[in-house]
Amino acid sequence: MDTVVTDTFFLEKFADRTETVWTRSDASQIVEHHGAPTRAYGALYSNGPIHSMNIDRRARLPDDVAIDILYCGVCHSDIHMIRGEWGEQPFPMVPGHEFVGRVSAVGQAVTRFSPGDFAGVGCMVDSCKAGLEQYCTKGTTVTYASPDPRGPGRTYGGYAERIVVRERFVVKIPDGADLAFTPPLLCSGITTFSPMQHWRLGSGQRFAVIGLGGLGHTALKLAVHRGAKATVFTTSADKAKDAYAMGAKDVVVWQPAATDPIPLAEQMANRFNFLLSTIPLPFDVAPFLPRLRQDDIFVNVGAPGVIAGVSGGALWNQRRSIAGSCIGGMPETQEVVDYCSANAIRPQIELIRPDQIDESYLRVERKDVRYRFVIDLASDRIG
Amino acid sequence: MDTVVTDTFFLEKFADRTETVWTRSDASQIVEHHGAPTRAYGALYSNGPIHSMNIDRRARLPDDVAIDILYCGVCHSDIHMIRGEWGEQPFPMVPGHEFVGRVSAVGQAVTRFSPGDFAGVGCMVDSCKAGLEQYCTKGTTVTYASPDPRGPGRTYGGYAERIVVRERFVVKIPDGADLAFTPPLLCSGITTFSPMQHWRLGSGQRFAVIGLGGLGHTALKLAVHRGAKATVFTTSADKAKDAYAMGAKDVVVWQPAATDPIPLAEQMANRFNFLLSTIPLPFDVAPFLPRLRQDDIFVNVGAPGVIAGVSGGALWNQRRSIAGSCIGGMPETQEVVDYCSANAIRPQIELIRPDQIDESYLRVERKDVRYRFVIDLASDRIG
Repeated sequence: MDTVVTDTFFLEKFADRTETVWTRSDASQIVEHHGAPTRAYGALYSNGPIHSMNIDRRARLPDDVAIDILYCGVCHSDIHMIRGEWGEQPFPMVPGHEFVGRVSAVGQAVTRFSPGDFAGVGCMVDSCKAGLEQYCTKGTTVTYASPDPRGPGRTYGGYAERIVVRERFVVKIPDGADLAFTPPLLCSGITTFSPMQHWRLGSGQRFAVIGLGGLGHTALKLAVHRGAKATVFTTSADKAKDAYAMGAKDVVVWQPAATDPIPLAEQMANRFNFLLSTIPLPFDVAPFLPRLRQDDIFVNVGAPGVIAGVSGGALWNQRRSIAGSCIGGMPETQEVVDYCSANAIRPQIELIRPDQIDESYLRVERKDVRYRFVIDLASDRIG
Repeated sequence: MDTVVTDTFFLEKFADRTETVWTRSDASQIVEHHGAPTRAYGALYSNGPIHSMNIDRRARLPDDVAIDILYCGVCHSDIHMIRGEWGEQPFPMVPGHEFVGRVSAVGQAVTRFSPGDFAGVGCMVDSCKAGLEQYCTKGTTVTYASPDPRGPGRTYGGYAERIVVRERFVVKIPDGADLAFTPPLLCSGITTFSPMQHWRLGSGQRFAVIGLGGLGHTALKLAVHRGAKATVFTTSADKAKDAYAMGAKDVVVWQPAATDPIPLAEQMANRFNFLLSTIPLPFDVAPFLPRLRQDDIFVNVGAPGVIAGVSGGALWNQRRSIAGSCIGGMPETQEVVDYCSANAIRPQIELIRPDQIDESYLRVERKDVRYRFVIDLASDRIG
């Protein structure tokens, strides 16, 4: 009895029982099974460990696709959510918002999928808006920890063996795509591709990515493929070799807390057309803004917190901008998956088993991942 | 002997004299007159009072225009510069970067002006860049307190009876323009017009200006003339009536330090296409960013300091941007003067005499100006 489950769905469902609190050891018994129980991996409480539990998936509606999940990426957001770093969250939580699998069944209104097809799901599973679903002002339904408009309770993500998702939010995986390498495209791929499309990162332009993790290394590969001259700002000197191998022209090792955080300051004044920050924590952007050219842009996709060091003078000096960009719409998500498959752009991953998720979180936090963990969910079914 | 004149030009010129420091009472004797002495109004030291002094204007080059100044506006920047609020500045300083007058003489290469023409000068007098002169990365020569590439020492501004300016930085004043009302267009007009042009503020769009001072009230008039639905955020409740008279649809009285700084918060979520901040001091922008619609922009033209409250989440939530914009290029400065003359858009001013400048500064600082002070320099010559 060491934790309170705050999810109202669960509290309601169990209102007729004596127990409204559960301990970690009760995890596998907390859900009533209307349908087949689904094995999932999640946390019972904030900052809790990830372990196996059974969850219920909602009933399939006519426009739903049921998917047996094969591979699910570990995003730094999962860690922020589990840790409570993005505010209080509902628990139990089953993370995972970039995954692929095989379609097991479809509703009668589904037109784009048949059983046996490979399919992927990213960060959203519903929205009142079409095309740019992520900018729904009424609140997009995200893949986990969102109130679920199509079923009781909240959504549970892709750290699981099965899921049911509305067809419009399911991406077709092209023939020949390497399945294990595809999940990161559904979050880190689309999140970095979308701003490059929106702000038209072009061939020959000077691009820099700040942070070389899951998002950053995908951004680097995408930018290099577009013909941009890419610079990498990383705090990990031992990533420089990888960055050059991925096509970077320059690598700058910087430390946010240093007095002179960017040693190449002078050479890089008014240099870049596009700065993309993928750092998952807020940092002082003051050293970066003067690196932008006239009318050019700093885009933050990494951290939702307050951005420090935004100087009015640095912005007006060359009519520079700072913007944010949130994942990407469903058409663009399909586009990046198709584009990466057609052009053999693939994230660099480390495959792990479900029992290694906790360890993977710790490794992400100490920047010890090259460059995205992907959970092999089938390994668990086989094993 | 209460102040040191730090301007190296003056120190060099007087190196053969015994005095290298001057008291305030020496002000009118500090300059040798290579040509006709020019009466000017400036400060001898940081935060010092404005008083009459004689300055030298540089020799006229072939592409220069000599102007007898008639009217010069008082910009809040003048106060920031005199007060040292934008960093240490060189003194003596003669402010003034929005003024009009009559051409007295032109160099042989001048093609657009003849003696007797009316002419205006804004914030710049030289640049290595054409068209968007203000974004010269080598450093634009501003109208006062800049090293002067065309003469010895530093530039002195428009609080003076005469000036010599390179033709390219001189604006033609259209026939029929009301001269006393024209100076503010050369700074507050162009500073607010330029971002509306660049980010295409259009008819029917929802625009809001934050701050209703010299820049803000000009911005309001310009936006209303474009057909935008304009809202004014002001900290001065007694300006509301004026704002409505100038065409505002809504006026919100807000207080930056309040717990709920914008009482109309809920009604105004995702409302605006364009937020323009003209506040001359940094403030927390967090309450404003969620008011922007998808893909829309907050532009700061008011303050060079660090902008607090820029939330990564508020930006990425609707792909919003924050940008800065600096005055405007010379072609656009000519354009705004012509446009306002043709469309009878004119700032609201209070005419003052040169001996009222100190008082006008105090009144600007306590927001007691409706809405721009303009110095009548001819009044001094007559009187």
